[in-house]
Parts: sequence; structure tokens; C-alpha cells
Amino acid sequence: MRATDIIMKKRLGGELSAEEIQAFVRGATDGSFEDYQLSALLMAICMAGMTDRETVDLTMSMARSGETLDLSSIPGAKVDKHSTGGVGDTTTLIVAPLAAACGAKVAKMSGRGLGFTGGTLDKLESIPGMRVDLSRERFIEQVKAIGIAVIGQTSELAPADRTLYALRDVTATVDSLPLVTSSILSKKIAAGCDAVVLDVKTGSGAVMPTAEMSVKLAETMVRIGSMTGRRFSALVTDMDQPLGMNVGNALEVREAIDALCGRADGALLDVSLQLGAQMLRTAGLADSARAATARLREKLANGEGLKKLAEMIEAQGGDPRVAQDPDRLPKAEARLSVGAPEGGYIAAMKTSDIGYAAQALGAGRVRKGDRIDPAVGLVMKKRVGDPVEKGEIWCELHVNPASDVAAARRLLEGALTVSPRPVAAPELVHAVIE
Amino acid sequence: MRATDIIMKKRLGGELSAEEIQAFVRGATDGSFEDYQLSALLMAICMAGMTDRETVDLTMSMARSGETLDLSSIPGAKVDKHSTGGVGDTTTLIVAPLAAACGAKVAKMSGRGLGFTGGTLDKLESIPGMRVDLSRERFIEQVKAIGIAVIGQTSELAPADRTLYALRDVTATVDSLPLVTSSILSKKIAAGCDAVVLDVKTGSGAVMPTAEMSVKLAETMVRIGSMTGRRFSALVTDMDQPLGMNVGNALEVREAIDALCGRADGALLDVSLQLGAQMLRTAGLADSARAATARLREKLANGEGLKKLAEMIEAQGGDPRVAQDPDRLPKAEARLSVGAPEGGYIAAMKTSDIGYAAQALGAGRVRKGDRIDPAVGLVMKKRVGDPVEKGEIWCELHVNPASDVAAARRLLEGALTVSPRPVAAPELVHAVIE
Repeated sequence: MRATDIIMKKRLGGELSAEEIQAFVRGATDGSFEDYQLSALLMAICMAGMTDRETVDLTMSMARSGETLDLSSIPGAKVDKHSTGGVGDTTTLIVAPLAAACGAKVAKMSGRGLGFTGGTLDKLESIPGMRVDLSRERFIEQVKAIGIAVIGQTSELAPADRTLYALRDVTATVDSLPLVTSSILSKKIAAGCDAVVLDVKTGSGAVMPTAEMSVKLAETMVRIGSMTGRRFSALVTDMDQPLGMNVGNALEVREAIDALCGRADGALLDVSLQLGAQMLRTAGLADSARAATARLREKLANGEGLKKLAEMIEAQGGDPRVAQDPDRLPKAEARLSVGAPEGGYIAAMKTSDIGYAAQALGAGRVRKGDRIDPAVGLVMKKRVGDPVEKGEIWCELHVNPASDVAAARRLLEGALTVSPRPVAAPELVHAVIE
Repeated sequence: MRATDIIMKKRLGGELSAEEIQAFVRGATDGSFEDYQLSALLMAICMAGMTDRETVDLTMSMARSGETLDLSSIPGAKVDKHSTGGVGDTTTLIVAPLAAACGAKVAKMSGRGLGFTGGTLDKLESIPGMRVDLSRERFIEQVKAIGIAVIGQTSELAPADRTLYALRDVTATVDSLPLVTSSILSKKIAAGCDAVVLDVKTGSGAVMPTAEMSVKLAETMVRIGSMTGRRFSALVTDMDQPLGMNVGNALEVREAIDALCGRADGALLDVSLQLGAQMLRTAGLADSARAATARLREKLANGEGLKKLAEMIEAQGGDPRVAQDPDRLPKAEARLSVGAPEGGYIAAMKTSDIGYAAQALGAGRVRKGDRIDPAVGLVMKKRVGDPVEKGEIWCELHVNPASDVAAARRLLEGALTVSPRPVAAPELVHAVIE
């Protein structure tokens, strides 16, 4: 099967057969398709689209392009969640322990920060001693023993996606429904999940900027995911401002602990509980959102969620005392504040630039392989809709000597819009797709 | 200007600015765009198209991507012709000397055979001693002195086209109107031409298989070429069978000499005269096709065309005696014949496979850099529409020991369609576009 024949078929708007898609994915995995052929085909897919049948075949071919994980030896209701990536988006550290405390088996593979978005692995590693590189055997044993483990995705899972994602990033072919769908679902399927709640972000800090596009992506992923014989559902949630008040690795762990202690409520906890309720329902552990939410709130109130987080930290070599005493987390040397340029109401935030500001302080990587500083980041003092006075602090920088404070300030100054008229707070959950 | 921004703009159907096209062409020339980015953009151009303004900018950017030739020191009416490539397509060796004998200045850069198509340079090199690698200075001096020179295109002309063409060939992005147009015109413009007759082939031995697509390509090239301020016109000519009776390098030179001697007429001479008439008119040397044809026929009848060919051969180091005595050309050791599988009328020929059969005998290259055998090839004995008896010879192989006769026979057997009913001979010239 020649690469050029497959490319030409898609260029002319044809529907690729399962064998043709298999040849493409194999070509991406073993190098038998050249990069320039892969990128020509990716562009043709972006422009001509794919049928659901093609997208399912692409997803499954990519899922099977490397090793796959078998979680069948774990008894009980296994469930995973996946966020398309955001800023101050610490839901996993709250919802995964709560869901596990409710009896769900959370065998989760997470990612690292990319661009302006944060990554769960980087956040976990800010806990002293914490390991995210468990062997598969230990990963499965830990989920069996305590119901929860969060580790890094091994490079053997869905290697075709790694090649294609790297190419998409540099050829303007990222935001294509069949390509985004197959990329996300293939990794989840290779990781052995059979029930997944997708958290599709929308807004100025999301891959898909408009709610309409995000809903379409969420619908496509749930439809295609269900066609592969697994249970998928999705929430489309707001990313027009950082979800939590903290942006930065140890800062976000602290906020998650605060939420699990009942010390912090607000958007982060609210979205976490809605995601958790969806997880329990998708896993078959609750009949209704109301019943699921009640169970999650119980585990929050009685401290079992926090206890589950501490258990996980301990099982993965970290210091479990941070759960009771977050001051044991790394702290930055200094705090600086950013004042509002004028009085009024917070009307909008360029969320991606807030993420880039945290990156400039050292919370994220500019290049793959860069070291990140777990202590630095931002603490937001205002949310969209809040009144603000001229000069009032809306953001606090937690900085260390290596932080590029000037760059962060520049980004933050451009990120804020203040309106003289009152502004409504945005909805947190735009849609639920089941 | 980032590659991804330019690619995304075209992906979304936008019109690229002159600066964006310039950045793309520079990226292809200096390697600042990666191959996978170039191929993604080529695919987006194939699928979204280009406006005439974009195609003109692309053509001119490519023409200026390397050195350009200045022919202004040559006095008189300079004119060139360019064929999109065919089989048994020896028109240059007939029409260039005839036009030069009529007073046109023919400063021509030609190409080598590619795939199933032949190349004028390979044909010329079958003449003992003939050189096609003249310096620019000698090239221009020769045109000044005798009105004609045919040499190879130097690699410094339109280097962006070389990169893009190689990528298009392996990414299924060859047959796009703006890409074909800019590829052909940029080389002609870089070579200094200001009046060009394009010979756009159509049929089973052409890049564009249907007459409709070929006419559209011809119209596009003439329109875009005129927008660059040069005089372009085009003939769409038939390539549903080899144009001449001979296919192979020395064999085609012999057929051209025979035509210039008045020993051979038929399709090859007919198309050559029509191309020549168009050249004289485009160069401003004749007012009407009728007047132009009369002048060309005069130069044919009085032997001045043949004399001009001999002058060119001598000027380029070749043995001019071949013009009077074509037996001085290399000859193959043996002749084999191919008989018709059944009686009736020749209904169709798969012209590309006839070209590939000649290649299998050694007349063309399978890989770039292969040596070709000037002596081998095919002599056709029948044309479409001719009656044929079962077993009657329709094609003769001129072979040497290294020829892959079995492969050639296999190709030829599949190339012929015989019909029990009479078949009309195809039109030679489908359209003239001025």
C-alpha cells in the first residue's frame, strides 16, 4: 500500500479503509512513512475530515500502535478522567481521591505541563519524595490495594500518537476533530481504561477557544469513544480564567489539599465535584448526579478524601504529612503583587497568558526537558465579575531568584480587562455530554 | 513570519500575501521551512487552491529563488517552447531549427527524461560528441551567432522548484493548477524567456489525463504567464499515443532528421509545424498562422531547417554529419517484433506503458543518475485508427544485451487495445490558447 495512494485518496475526499488507516499508523510508528508524507496526510484529514468509522479505526490503530495496559485484574469499577488542559486546573488531585474514597478504582496515567497548561505529574512531583514512575506491576498492585494511583504515561503507549502529535504541533494541524479525538482516546484506550470522563475546556486558556467548538469536540469524543465499546462521557467546562486561585505546582497541590480539608470552596471544588459525580455515574457507582454529589460531599466532610490522597502519596514514596501540613511543600522566597490598572469590574482574563506568566516564573517548561521550579507561581486574588479598585492587588507572584519577573509582569498586564460596568461571572459547566 | 501561521491561513482558505508566499519560497530554498511544513502547505494549496494573484506571486518568488538568466544582449525576437512531457515527443529537434531558420532566436533550456517521458537533453546526447552543458556565456554567444542553442537547465535556476517538485512527487500533490503552473513558468522566467509557447499534453501519456483538465491547465498557465508581463500561448496536443513513430533517444533524433529532410511526415511533423507557427506568431515574426506555416514549410523544403540543426550540433561539439547520414547515430544490436494479439482496428494505447517499455529496454532512467542507452527503444508501426491483422507487427523493439525485453513485452502487451469496429484517429491539437 503506497503512501501517495492513501494521501491522494484523502486529498480527493475519499473514505480511507481500515487497512489504509492501519498502514498510515504503522507508517508513523515504524518510520515507513516519511514525516513529509505524514504531514501531507494530516493536512488532508484536517481539510477533508473523516467519517466516524474512519475516526474509530484511527483511534484503535493508534491505541494498538504500541503496548497496551490490561487492568482487568483490578476488581471493581475502574474509572478515569482526562482534561484537555488548562490553567490552575487541579481537579485530578481533588476528584481522584474523592472518587477512590467512594469505592471507584482510579488507575490514572497523567501528563506533564505543555505550553501554558499545567500537568498533574509536575504538580505531584512538588511533594517531597513523590514518585510518578512506578512499574506497571506496582501501579496495578497499588490500585488493587488502595484504589488509586496516578503515574506518568510510558512512552510505549500509543507511540504513533507521539510522532503525529509532534508533527501536528509544527504543521498547523492540531485543531482537527478526528485528529484531537483519536489522539486523546487512543492514549486512554491503550492505558486500559473502560470508563472515562472527559473534561473539555473552553475559553481563552483552552485548545478550542469557542464553546461551540468545544461542545462539538466533546460530542465527537463521546460518540467515537462509545463506538469503541467503552463508556465515555464529557463535561465542557470554563477556561476563560484560571479554574483555581493558584497557578504553579506546589501552590496547586496546596489548593487541592485546602479543598479536601474544606478550607477552600469556589470554582475549583465545584467543577471537581461535578466531574466526580460524572465519574461515579459513568463507573456505575451512583444512579443520579444528586446521589453521586451527596456521596462525594460526605467523603469531603469526613476527611476520607484527604486521607485517600495521603495514602496515595505515601504509597508512591512521598511525604504524606503534607496533607495535614501543606507548609511542608516547597515555598518560593518572595512574593510580589500586581495591581489593577484601573477600577471597575474584572471583565476578562487572557488565561493562556496567565499560564505563560507562571511559566516565565519557572513553573513550566519553555523547552522539553527544562527543569521546573515547584515553588513558584501565581495566586489569583480576583475572578471575572469581581469588583476591583485601581491599584488593588489582583494577582500575587511567588518568585525565586531564577524567575523572569519582568516577563511575567508584562504578560499579566496584558492579560487583564477591566470594565466600568458590572460583568456577570461565567458559567462553570457549559454542557454535559453522555 | 512563522511557518505554522502561513500554513494555517491557507488551511482555512485564506489568500496568502506576497510576503507570506515569499517566506514560503525562501523557506523551501534555504531550509528554514522543514520538509514536513512545506508538504503540509503544498497539500493545503492543493485543496484550497490559489487566486491568480497568489499564483503570480508564487511563480515570481520561485523564479527569483536562485540565479536568473539575462538574455537581453541577444538582439531579435527570442522565443522558447516547453512541453509538459510525453512519449515519442521529439518536436523540439524539429521546430527549434525551423524557427531559428525563420529568424527566431531560440535560447532553450531543456530537461532530461523523467519516468515514462523522454527528455530533449538525453536525445541530443545520443549524437556523438554533443555537449549540453555550455556555460551561460557560450550559450548566449551561440544564440547570437547562429540563432539557436539547446542546453541543460543549471541547478541554480529556480532552486525552490527543485525542492518543492521532489516533495510533491512523494506527497500526492503533483496535479494542482497553481503548483504545476508556478513550477513550469518559474523555470522559464528564470531562464530569461519573454515569449514562450507551451505544449500541454493530454491523454494516457500526460500528467493531466483528460482534455478538460489539460485545457484548464493551459489556460491557467497562459493567463498567469501573461500577468507576469511575458508573452505566453499554449497548444493542448494529443498524447493518447506516442506522437512520433520512434521512442528512444537516437531513434527519435533520426526521426527528427527524417522529418527535416522531408522523408517523414505525419503527426510529429504536423504538431511541430503548428507549434512552430505559434512560436513565430508569439515572437512577432508572423501575422497569421497561415503565413507562419508557409515560412516554416519553405525552410523545411529548402533544407535550411536541417542545416540549422547541423549548425547547432557542430557548435555544441557534436558530429554534424549525422544530419545527412543518420546511420552515424548509435544503433542497437538486435530488433525484435511485437505482433497484435487479434485483428481489427487499433483503438487505444496506454502511452505511459509504452514509455515505460522503452525505459525497460534502457532508453530511460529508473533512478536519478542511471545511465541510459542511446541506441535502444521502440519503433511503432501502427497508430490509433489503423487496421491491424492478428499477428501483424505493431511495434518493433531495438534492443541491446542489457535490455529487459521481458518487462518491455509485458508492458506492451497490456498497452494495446484492438477493436473489431473502425476507430477514428484522434485529433492532434485539442485547443490553442493565446
